[in-house]
Amino acid sequence: MSSSDLPRLLIVIGSSRPGRLGHHVARWFEHRVREHGQFEPVVADLAEIALPFFDEPRHPRLGDYAHQHTRDWAALVGSTDAVVLVTPEYNHGPSAVLKNAIDFLHAEWRDKPVGFVSYGGVAAGTRAVQQLVQIVATVRMIPVFDAVAISGVRQVVGEGGEVASTQSMDRSSIALLDELARLLQQLHPAPAGN
Amino acid sequence: MSSSDLPRLLIVIGSSRPGRLGHHVARWFEHRVREHGQFEPVVADLAEIALPFFDEPRHPRLGDYAHQHTRDWAALVGSTDAVVLVTPEYNHGPSAVLKNAIDFLHAEWRDKPVGFVSYGGVAAGTRAVQQLVQIVATVRMIPVFDAVAISGVRQVVGEGGEVASTQSMDRSSIALLDELARLLQQLHPAPAGN
Amino acid sequence: MSSSDLPRLLIVIGSSRPGRLGHHVARWFEHRVREHGQFEPVVADLAEIALPFFDEPRHPRLGDYAHQHTRDWAALVGSTDAVVLVTPEYNHGPSAVLKNAIDFLHAEWRDKPVGFVSYGGVAAGTRAVQQLVQIVATVRMIPVFDAVAISGVRQVVGEGGEVASTQSMDRSSIALLDELARLLQQLHPAPAGN
Amino acid sequence: MSSSDLPRLLIVIGSSRPGRLGHHVARWFEHRVREHGQFEPVVADLAEIALPFFDEPRHPRLGDYAHQHTRDWAALVGSTDAVVLVTPEYNHGPSAVLKNAIDFLHAEWRDKPVGFVSYGGVAAGTRAVQQLVQIVATVRMIPVFDAVAISGVRQVVGEGGEVASTQSMDRSSIALLDELARLLQQLHPAPAGN
Repeated sequence: MSSSDLPRLLIVIGSSRPGRLGHHVARWFEHRVREHGQFEPVVADLAEIALPFFDEPRHPRLGDYAHQHTRDWAALVGSTDAVVLVTPEYNHGPSAVLKNAIDFLHAEWRDKPVGFVSYGGVAAGTRAVQQLVQIVATVRMIPVFDAVAISGVRQVVGEGGEVASTQSMDRSSIALLDELARLLQQLHPAPAGN
Repeated sequence: MSSSDLPRLLIVIGSSRPGRLGHHVARWFEHRVREHGQFEPVVADLAEIALPFFDEPRHPRLGDYAHQHTRDWAALVGSTDAVVLVTPEYNHGPSAVLKNAIDFLHAEWRDKPVGFVSYGGVAAGTRAVQQLVQIVATVRMIPVFDAVAISGVRQVVGEGGEVASTQSMDRSSIALLDELARLLQQLHPAPAGN
Repeated sequence: MSSSDLPRLLIVIGSSRPGRLGHHVARWFEHRVREHGQFEPVVADLAEIALPFFDEPRHPRLGDYAHQHTRDWAALVGSTDAVVLVTPEYNHGPSAVLKNAIDFLHAEWRDKPVGFVSYGGVAAGTRAVQQLVQIVATVRMIPVFDAVAISGVRQVVGEGGEVASTQSMDRSSIALLDELARLLQQLHPAPAGN
Repeated sequence: MSSSDLPRLLIVIGSSRPGRLGHHVARWFEHRVREHGQFEPVVADLAEIALPFFDEPRHPRLGDYAHQHTRDWAALVGSTDAVVLVTPEYNHGPSAVLKNAIDFLHAEWRDKPVGFVSYGGVAAGTRAVQQLVQIVATVRMIPVFDAVAISGVRQVVGEGGEVASTQSMDRSSIALLDELARLLQQLHPAPAGN
């Protein structure tokens, strides 16, 4: 099976502030996805995608998008099969940039299994994940229990952005990817002949 | 197809206080399930089941239950294919009796699609549902977006317990059951020959 | 007592999308504040304030803001005594524009009583309020229980933006303002001589 | 000032299962309260108090309690000035026994500052705290930001129940108690002459 036959896993970098750590964590996770071998990683850096605050005149559930930036984001999300949200915790919730990117679309998220890679201090970003579980269920994504939760992230990501992966991080990334693969297979079995 | 071939839908009455409305709402929903025709309803009245506060010495994820009341509850939940939680809202969360009944088990809930029938005042019980979405995801149930949310429940349930169903209640109960059936079919397709 | 001696109540319009209803709801609430007579309303329209996505290099808790837009927002919030967040519900949470405006600051929010005016469909925007309660507690605001929750908002706000206030809306706006005034008086008693 | 002149801090042990750790954590925190010296600790062990599942026929907001167990619990809570909830995390929420004990009462909780001592695994019990923040706000308690969050609790509490306190636990317990004392003083200043 060539790489392009693998299901596509969208990895969303859910922070955009100067000095953020999310892109380092996401790059680390992208490597774990390649090692795991069951998904083709597709990284969406919300800092580069640079959506404005939600500005569509019609409800996203109609899929009738007025803006090119929305259509581009819809095409990218729509081209993937599963999702991992890499999320910081700002005031015990997700960043605005991540909530905004979810709110822009609707049907493109539907029925996709979604996992979480969170990072933070004592709570390891899990309070942001808890709010995200409520949000993703609303656009009919299917939240996966297994998750990567990185506590004390400032000790894990070095000055140069290198990630000193712990055993717990490595183990939980495999559990997350296994569960995404299992659910994806159940929800969208490959057609006969594949 | 005889009734007994239908997938079994567990309807949990999530309140037990004297004067509760939940059993009236649940009976109304049970009728909707029979009309819908794709599930065999199985009603679990937590007031009758009468579990104590969680008292298992080992974590439910081990499935190694010390008490007969736990094994009975596990057998009942385990015999069903999908779940609907009928929930009031106590201080913006689910009742203790409902949270407790979920906490008692683990693998028995796994991979079951779960929907919500909530009732209350201005928020229609939806704040309890929001906490339940986080809880059911933890035991690997799959929350369904479509839901029945009954606002102003004291106008809907009469003195004798009869439910004056609104058009919105009827429509949303069909949407909920359709979505449960769709997800169940995807997650657990009937074996060939059925 | 002249108007300028009243405590200042910041009313935040928590939506900015084209076609939004929030500014109509906020203007209705501003009138209720004037009728109530115990606060000087100060309306902050996040569409006009037009903050970018959070872009401060240092944590807001340090108060060491790099950008003029942050210092302006800090000055406005810092000049007020209590807060009301007027919030829609996007995918069961607050809008990104509102979360972002909260995340930009820290000490400016501290010890301010905060109330909620939410609007939506069956849940009346209360699910967004539930996430906001968690968020405002993090910046040490003091959430007020009494709230205005507008269900079926499309029937309440007319084509021209006029608000057909219900008795429940009027009553709950008074309860919210009474409770804000009570808590503010307890937390920050007026100095002797006032 | 004799001990009995200090404000009374209710410490609720929010778990009752066999093998629980909560009473060990609570006893450790009780010692921190005595060292801190600004509160008289009053420990409420929900395993001993042994409330049934909520069984009052009338809404607690009426304060018209039918059962002696409710009146006893009301008298105990009503005799205290501030609250700390010691909470485990069961399926990302509080235990049923803790939610139930809160639901039983109403006015007795009002205007009391409340802090949290949570314990768990990677999330240190903070997901339960997040649900509790929503719940306590409903009965008009005032949640305090500063909190004790114990991750990896099985390494912290020894076989014999002794707690190997970390520097972070000690520091955060002081911050929590300082903030409770500050808020209590603002909300309920001691009468002149005290």
